[in-house]
Amino acid sequence: MVYYPNNQEEEQMEIRPTEINYARELDAGDRLAIFRDKFYIPDENIIYLDGNSLGRLPKETAAILNQEISQHWGDQLIRSWNANWIQTSRQAGDKIARLIGASPGEVLVSDSTSINLFKLVLAALQARVERKIIISDVFNFPSDLYVIQGISHLLNNSHQIRMVPSDDGVSISIHSIDSAIDSDTALVYLTHVSYRNAFMYDMQAVTELAHKRGSLILWDLSHSTGAVPLELNQWNVDLAVGCTYKYLNSGPGAPAFLYVRKDLQDTLVSPIWGWFGAKQPFKFALDYEPALGIDRFQTGTPPILSMKAIEPAVDIILDAGIDNIREKSIMQTEYLISLTDILLKPLGFEVISPRDSRMRGSHISLKHNEAYRICQAMITPLQPNPIVIPDFRAPDLIRLGISPLYNTFSEINLAVHRIKTIVETGTYHRFSKDWLPVT
Amino acid sequence: MVYYPNNQEEEQMEIRPTEINYARELDAGDRLAIFRDKFYIPDENIIYLDGNSLGRLPKETAAILNQEISQHWGDQLIRSWNANWIQTSRQAGDKIARLIGASPGEVLVSDSTSINLFKLVLAALQARVERKIIISDVFNFPSDLYVIQGISHLLNNSHQIRMVPSDDGVSISIHSIDSAIDSDTALVYLTHVSYRNAFMYDMQAVTELAHKRGSLILWDLSHSTGAVPLELNQWNVDLAVGCTYKYLNSGPGAPAFLYVRKDLQDTLVSPIWGWFGAKQPFKFALDYEPALGIDRFQTGTPPILSMKAIEPAVDIILDAGIDNIREKSIMQTEYLISLTDILLKPLGFEVISPRDSRMRGSHISLKHNEAYRICQAMITPLQPNPIVIPDFRAPDLIRLGISPLYNTFSEINLAVHRIKTIVETGTYHRFSKDWLPVT
Repeated sequence: MVYYPNNQEEEQMEIRPTEINYARELDAGDRLAIFRDKFYIPDENIIYLDGNSLGRLPKETAAILNQEISQHWGDQLIRSWNANWIQTSRQAGDKIARLIGASPGEVLVSDSTSINLFKLVLAALQARVERKIIISDVFNFPSDLYVIQGISHLLNNSHQIRMVPSDDGVSISIHSIDSAIDSDTALVYLTHVSYRNAFMYDMQAVTELAHKRGSLILWDLSHSTGAVPLELNQWNVDLAVGCTYKYLNSGPGAPAFLYVRKDLQDTLVSPIWGWFGAKQPFKFALDYEPALGIDRFQTGTPPILSMKAIEPAVDIILDAGIDNIREKSIMQTEYLISLTDILLKPLGFEVISPRDSRMRGSHISLKHNEAYRICQAMITPLQPNPIVIPDFRAPDLIRLGISPLYNTFSEINLAVHRIKTIVETGTYHRFSKDWLPVT
Repeated sequence: MVYYPNNQEEEQMEIRPTEINYARELDAGDRLAIFRDKFYIPDENIIYLDGNSLGRLPKETAAILNQEISQHWGDQLIRSWNANWIQTSRQAGDKIARLIGASPGEVLVSDSTSINLFKLVLAALQARVERKIIISDVFNFPSDLYVIQGISHLLNNSHQIRMVPSDDGVSISIHSIDSAIDSDTALVYLTHVSYRNAFMYDMQAVTELAHKRGSLILWDLSHSTGAVPLELNQWNVDLAVGCTYKYLNSGPGAPAFLYVRKDLQDTLVSPIWGWFGAKQPFKFALDYEPALGIDRFQTGTPPILSMKAIEPAVDIILDAGIDNIREKSIMQTEYLISLTDILLKPLGFEVISPRDSRMRGSHISLKHNEAYRICQAMITPLQPNPIVIPDFRAPDLIRLGISPLYNTFSEINLAVHRIKTIVETGTYHRFSKDWLPVT
């Protein structure tokens, strides 16, 4: 479904959705358009549709990092730990909490997504020690699955991982999840929005199903946070982790966050006992005593420079409002689907993201036999065409990520036309079919 | 023992070691003096003796980080992963390898020291599954001990931690270590240079003792790397981890490194299976297959900005030469001990670092009943005195770290005189005795 702006002259103008002027009209009516200027965009001829892999650099972040490097590290040196750095994990966590419907003291920035999954899964399994099943699905991010496979190996295969399939290749039905959970289920372990095609679960409904049978639930919010509204407290979510370098725009490999619901915190034990998770780290006692509250999920000394990029980036999202971002994201993904149907479907492209926006995050995945070569052509400069940067996902997916804070409707229009031209003119044939796994 | 420069006029000048001109002579003869200019030192009136907690900012690092932020992240965005970032863990690791006597492909930069300890300890215990003892000592860094306590808890207390005591409060005798290791020892788990007083083990001798009884050994090199020469390959060390933000000057919380000897790599299993440790991360397969070699010890996406500070900093050390750094470090710690004996001992200070430089790293710990208040006075500006920045370690230690790349003999002289004045004039009385554990 295409978004039509509230414009009385529309009929007279007879602009078709595929025309660039149509997209420009949408941009003209976009209340969030002003936020594009918050980001460092040195080349307007690059259409960046990969904010779901690595978000753009906010201008403010560059300034703040510069201050961290020269002033807090260079001038103040060790004194910055007490004055500033020691609180960063919690401060950045509290800021993210506001974005995901959690309370202060429930979110911590720490380590990577994989490490945080490792910590919370083991904590959950120990809290349900008599139960031996972990439920996950085939749309989960591979690293998430690797973490539980490693845990199962570590615990001498004491746990069974029950993988829920997809019936239609596009979604996982709530009925399939319901059937999988039983009284031996320790943990339901899912990604809210799939990296593959942006399929999105009904988090509240699935959380209820897990709780009904006494299981804990852990959500990976990596492709949700900053893109869709979340209400972790209201939905009674137990545990969650998420990434900060996608829609949170916090830079390459910026530390991840973890969420533990308040009433669970002091009952759970993190498996990795590091000094930052101790009650009194600077007492230097030889025996570990865990901190109370969320701090017990800290581990070693956190990477401050990477971590300092989080707060200024989250501030932009809080300013824009997550509901506004979601509204624009739906408009933009609908517009992209609609253009794909008109312009790309005849060229062999198939939309494999859910068409119902209530079941979809903020990226669109297109399937095409020549996806790899088309992606190569998209990112190769060929004047006067814009470069379009997507993500390729083997073997045959082109992922187009929409980051409403900086992506325009015009960019979406131009990107689809660019893909159309590449396929129609056969430009992609000049690239090798041999996919190099590292790319 | 005091270092006397090779100066024929010495006797005629009759400069005593406690005089500033004596220190200036030493600085004038110092071949490494030129390296101080490689660091950002905005205030010459601050004497920084805490490079063993957080090293100073190299000038080159600030430039490289700026390039990472605006060019590699801001301009190149996701394309930087293939072009540059994906290799960072290995590249920085190979550079550190040159510093510690390891081979290319044996060192990886990844996660924090605590996380790396967790990974390698569990890998070691699984490789010696029939053995149930871990040997450590009371000088080990608390976080290192917490990690093995957590592992023991995770494995249902299947392992016993045998703590080797110190007979004299200054060192751990090799005889005590020898007595502790038996045929049920899975892992000898020690810090090479103690954070507490810089006591340094004979790494080669202790490694031989561990191997003689079929145990593996894991060394924490956090207070050694960049300060003392290490020959991990020559000494046949199995496993090691280390920190990069101390003598490696790589910034607050910069990621740590881990070392696994080549022939052990493919036989060990990391407990944390993340996509960066998979054989083909971008294949997005649902089942984990570990990478061959050191890469299997990677976990999630690493924090690139913090990690990018490592290589330029290590380059400075390689340029200066670790043997030259060690030579100067010994001269400087000897000079500091000698001044303490003359000027501070009468005021109640006691050197609790080993007096034999072969058993000592690059910092000196002084014990004093009023250590906390004296530290407060040292870091408080009182014109025209220089600020002296040490580390306080509860309950009664002042740690003075020597980083030979930027610390001068004059700084050491001035620092000792400053401490003397603070105690003689009683300035420290104006500060509270109440130690706040967070500081």
